Amino acid sequence: MEKIKIFSPGSVANVSCGFDVLGFCLDDVGDEMIVRKTKSPGVKITKIEGQKLPLDVKKNVAGVAATALLNNHPTKEGFEIEIYKNIKAGSGIGSSAASAAGAVFGINELLGRPFTSHELIVFAMEGEGLASGAPHADNVSPVLLGGITLVRSIKPVDVIKLPCPKELTAVVLHPKIELKTLHAREILKKNVSMEKAIQQWGNLGAFVAALYNEDYELMSRSLKDEIVEPMRSLLIPEFDSLKKVCKAEGAIGFGISGSGPSVYALTRGTDKAQKISDAMKKIISSIGIDFVIHISTINNQGIKIIPN
Amino acid sequence: MEKIKIFSPGSVANVSCGFDVLGFCLDDVGDEMIVRKTKSPGVKITKIEGQKLPLDVKKNVAGVAATALLNNHPTKEGFEIEIYKNIKAGSGIGSSAASAAGAVFGINELLGRPFTSHELIVFAMEGEGLASGAPHADNVSPVLLGGITLVRSIKPVDVIKLPCPKELTAVVLHPKIELKTLHAREILKKNVSMEKAIQQWGNLGAFVAALYNEDYELMSRSLKDEIVEPMRSLLIPEFDSLKKVCKAEGAIGFGISGSGPSVYALTRGTDKAQKISDAMKKIISSIGIDFVIHISTINNQGIKIIPN
Repeated sequence: MEKIKIFSPGSVANVSCGFDVLGFCLDDVGDEMIVRKTKSPGVKITKIEGQKLPLDVKKNVAGVAATALLNNHPTKEGFEIEIYKNIKAGSGIGSSAASAAGAVFGINELLGRPFTSHELIVFAMEGEGLASGAPHADNVSPVLLGGITLVRSIKPVDVIKLPCPKELTAVVLHPKIELKTLHAREILKKNVSMEKAIQQWGNLGAFVAALYNEDYELMSRSLKDEIVEPMRSLLIPEFDSLKKVCKAEGAIGFGISGSGPSVYALTRGTDKAQKISDAMKKIISSIGIDFVIHISTINNQGIKIIPN
Repeated sequence: MEKIKIFSPGSVANVSCGFDVLGFCLDDVGDEMIVRKTKSPGVKITKIEGQKLPLDVKKNVAGVAATALLNNHPTKEGFEIEIYKNIKAGSGIGSSAASAAGAVFGINELLGRPFTSHELIVFAMEGEGLASGAPHADNVSPVLLGGITLVRSIKPVDVIKLPCPKELTAVVLHPKIELKTLHAREILKKNVSMEKAIQQWGNLGAFVAALYNEDYELMSRSLKDEIVEPMRSLLIPEFDSLKKVCKAEGAIGFGISGSGPSVYALTRGTDKAQKISDAMKKIISSIGIDFVIHISTINNQGIKIIPN
C-alpha cells in the first residue's frame, strides 16, 4: 500500500466522573487525512485545509506524533500527510487527538502494522503534549481503540477498552467561543478534598460497572463530577441551563467535553438525542452565540479507512 | 421462625485503590449470632462471648443497627440477640460490621424479610457510625450482599455488587496491636493532590473492569493506593517488608485491611495463598508480635444461616 485515506474522528474526554481517564469516540464528526509513502525519509505535512495550522512537523501535533512513531521504528521510507480538518482546534472534542492519532494510524498501516492500536497510543500522546502542554491519552485512546476507554496510567501507558452499550448516543454542543486547553488547565486546583475525591472514584467505579451491566440507571447516577465541573463550567455560557434541560429531556449524563467549551450529553437512542439537541439549540440560540451540534452514536471502531 | 443462628463474616474494606468504597467478604472468620423473637417489643442483647463489649443496645453496634431497622418497621415483636465474637474489635477486618450486619440480617429473617439485603445496608451503617464516628458502608455491604462490593454513595445508599472471580483468595494477617479506626481516621489528610486522586480513580475504574474480565494481570496493576497507604502504613509493623514478600510470592494485591492493623493479600488459588501466609508468618514472627493469619476464599454469599 502506497497511500491511505482515513476518517479520524472527534472524541469526548474528561467524561464527568472520569476526569483525565475516561473518553469516548464520536462517529459523525472528524477529520480526513491522506498519508502517502515517499522516497525521502522522514515526515512532511504537505497540506492542511479547514484550519490555519503550522505545516512544520515540529509544530504540528500530527508531525510530532508521526516523528515519535518513526523514532521507534527506523525505516528508509518517508511519509507525506495531508490533513482536512473538520474538528475546530480548541473546541474540546479532540481536534489535536484526531490529527495525532490519524497520523500514527496511517503510517502504521502503510508500514504493515508493526504496532498494535494500543502501542500507537504512546506516539499519539506526544502530539497531544504539544497541543496542551501535558501529554495525555484520554482523547487519543478512544480514537485509536474505538468506543469508550479508560486510561489507567500514562507512565507506563495502560488503557482499557470498556464495553459500549449499543443504544448509547452522544449529543455534543460546541458553542463557538475560544477556550484553550492550557487556560482551562490553569483554573484547576492542585488539591481536592478527600471527601469529593472519594465520591469521584466511587462514581467512576460504578460507571464502569454500569457499562458492563448495561445499567442505564446506574450510568445516570454515576455520571457526576463534583471536582472539575464546578470550576470549569463557569467558563461555559448557560452551562447550568443546558444541563437542566438535557436532564429533563432524558440525558443519562451531561458535562463538559474535554476542557470545553463543548458540552456533551449521553442518552439512549436517536429520538431522545434529537430532543436533547433541540433543547440545547433553543437555549444557546437565545444568547446569540454561534454553535454547532453533533448527534452521534459511540463509534466503537475508531479511525476508519476510506476506500479510494 | 422463632429463632435464627447465623455466621456473620469478617470483611476487608478500603481495598487499596478503593478507599472508602470497595470491600470484600471473608469466609473463614466470623462471629456467630443467635437472634430470638420475644414477647416484649424492642431489642435486648442478652449475651456476648469472646469480647468485652457493652450489652446496652445504645452502646453496642448490633443494638444500634437493630434499633434502626425496627424504627423503620414498627412491630409488636421484640428480639433478643446473643453474640459469639470471633473477630477482634479493632483488628481491621470488620468486627463491628459483622455485629451490625448480623443483627439486622437475623431480625429481618425472623420478620419474614420485609427488607432486601440492599435495604438492610442503611440500618447496619448506623451501627458502624457508633463504632467509627462516621457511618460507612464498605464493610457492612460485602457482609450483607456477599462477594466484592462498591459503595457508590452513602447519601443515599447506592451499592453495587461486583463480579467475584472464583479463584480469588485472600490472606489476611492480623498483627495483634491495637489501632482504633477513629485514630487511623485522624491521620488522614483532608485534601489530596489532584494528580494522585486521578491515579486513584483510574486504578479503581481499571480494577472494576478487571473483575468483569477476570483479568488478573490488570487487577494486579490496578490494586494500588497512593493516597492513604503511604500514611497509614506507617502505623503497621513491617508493612513494607510484608508487601515485598507477598508480591514476590505472587500476590495480586497487598494493602491495609480497613484502617489496619490487619493487612490483606489477594492471590489466585489456595496454593499461592499458603505460600503468602508462610512468608507473612516468617516476617511477623521475627519481630515477636502475636498474630493470626486467615486464608479465605471470597465469600460470595455473605452472612450464612447455621442450621439447628
